[in-house]
Amino acid sequence: MEQTKTTNIILFSGDYDKAMAAYIIANGAAAYDHEVTIFHTFWGLNALRKDNPPAAKKNMLEKMFAKMMPRGADKLGLSNMNMGGMGPKMIKQVINKHNAMTLPQLIEMAQEQDINLVACTMTMDLLGLKQEELLEDVTYAGVAAYLADAEDGNVNLFI
Amino acid sequence: MEQTKTTNIILFSGDYDKAMAAYIIANGAAAYDHEVTIFHTFWGLNALRKDNPPAAKKNMLEKMFAKMMPRGADKLGLSNMNMGGMGPKMIKQVINKHNAMTLPQLIEMAQEQDINLVACTMTMDLLGLKQEELLEDVTYAGVAAYLADAEDGNVNLFI
Amino acid sequence: MEQTKTTNIILFSGDYDKAMAAYIIANGAAAYDHEVTIFHTFWGLNALRKDNPPAAKKNMLEKMFAKMMPRGADKLGLSNMNMGGMGPKMIKQVINKHNAMTLPQLIEMAQEQDINLVACTMTMDLLGLKQEELLEDVTYAGVAAYLADAEDGNVNLFI
Repeated sequence: MEQTKTTNIILFSGDYDKAMAAYIIANGAAAYDHEVTIFHTFWGLNALRKDNPPAAKKNMLEKMFAKMMPRGADKLGLSNMNMGGMGPKMIKQVINKHNAMTLPQLIEMAQEQDINLVACTMTMDLLGLKQEELLEDVTYAGVAAYLADAEDGNVNLFI
Repeated sequence: MEQTKTTNIILFSGDYDKAMAAYIIANGAAAYDHEVTIFHTFWGLNALRKDNPPAAKKNMLEKMFAKMMPRGADKLGLSNMNMGGMGPKMIKQVINKHNAMTLPQLIEMAQEQDINLVACTMTMDLLGLKQEELLEDVTYAGVAAYLADAEDGNVNLFI
Repeated sequence: MEQTKTTNIILFSGDYDKAMAAYIIANGAAAYDHEVTIFHTFWGLNALRKDNPPAAKKNMLEKMFAKMMPRGADKLGLSNMNMGGMGPKMIKQVINKHNAMTLPQLIEMAQEQDINLVACTMTMDLLGLKQEELLEDVTYAGVAAYLADAEDGNVNLFI
């Protein structure tokens, strides 16, 4: 009997294109019956933010971070050719034209495929993000949980 | 009898320095008898563009991407200290001074060592890149092929 | 008897936040009894620079690189929201507020945990960095040494 293979992706980046790559690989691996985890840390947490979160109690620095960081997957910029927001519009246009999936659709598919979406509690603390601001069905964990998964992982990537 | 080891690199970045790192690791691994694959996706595809490709039929968005993205390995910018193109010039100068290899030379060496250079067909579609615009002897595949290689890989990296 | 697990991180980036992520994962893995190596290459070498190095003989290009690149872990910028140096100040403020560890503290902890900090000799040559400019107890090696470690590694990451 073969052991289940696993894919463990750290999503550090808050760029639309890099998050797309992470979710495309993750969804592909899940389709291949891998157990898949995406560990969202630092700017990668922005992909999990709700568009209209309930008001959360924040201190001044936390309010600044919350305001400056993009709120949710649809608002992320590009790592390249962002051009003040025109780049993301162009990418979304070609995605629609090719009947490919946008980042919010890829995240929804990941949740349907039971991919484990983890939010890094340490960086949530640093950036002042609260659980009620993130999508439902997200798991909360730290680097220890990541390592426990990754040390026996087949495909480990840092994106 | 030992099994052949494999190195599978996803080159997402279109930066000269990151592509250099990818190709240096890949060439090193090939010298160590690894089976090596570089899977070029998103901006990483630019490293495979020909300098003077035959005219390809493109719609307007595709023409914009084609024009704005660097055409080939020699034209890539730096991830850091790009300084409007002065950074790449400085890097190439020190490469020459130290008799190190430029990115186009590293790519040539990779082809001589039978490293498998893959172009991601999904992102080629999105960015409007055609096969005739890319280097000869490139393989065309998608995320499924990547995963089939990487799930048994020894060194898997996302660059 | 179980074999010792290993974590091999390539730190290519010279960004404060990415270096933090690398060192947090490394320190976590060391706490889990992994053998851990961080291979510093390209801009990642800046994290190992001394604040006040002895004068080193450099040619003009090397002097330019030395001057433009951040001198040591505390001087690195952010990959995101750097805002001319205000971002790093904000991050350090929240780190202090949460009694988390700054990058220099994480590096010190890595050294106490016997994590192998490697400086890539090839990129030291290219950027004109000399051994006397880097922290004590750093190991000097090239891509061959990295591959020898990573080909049997459990957690291999490129950051």
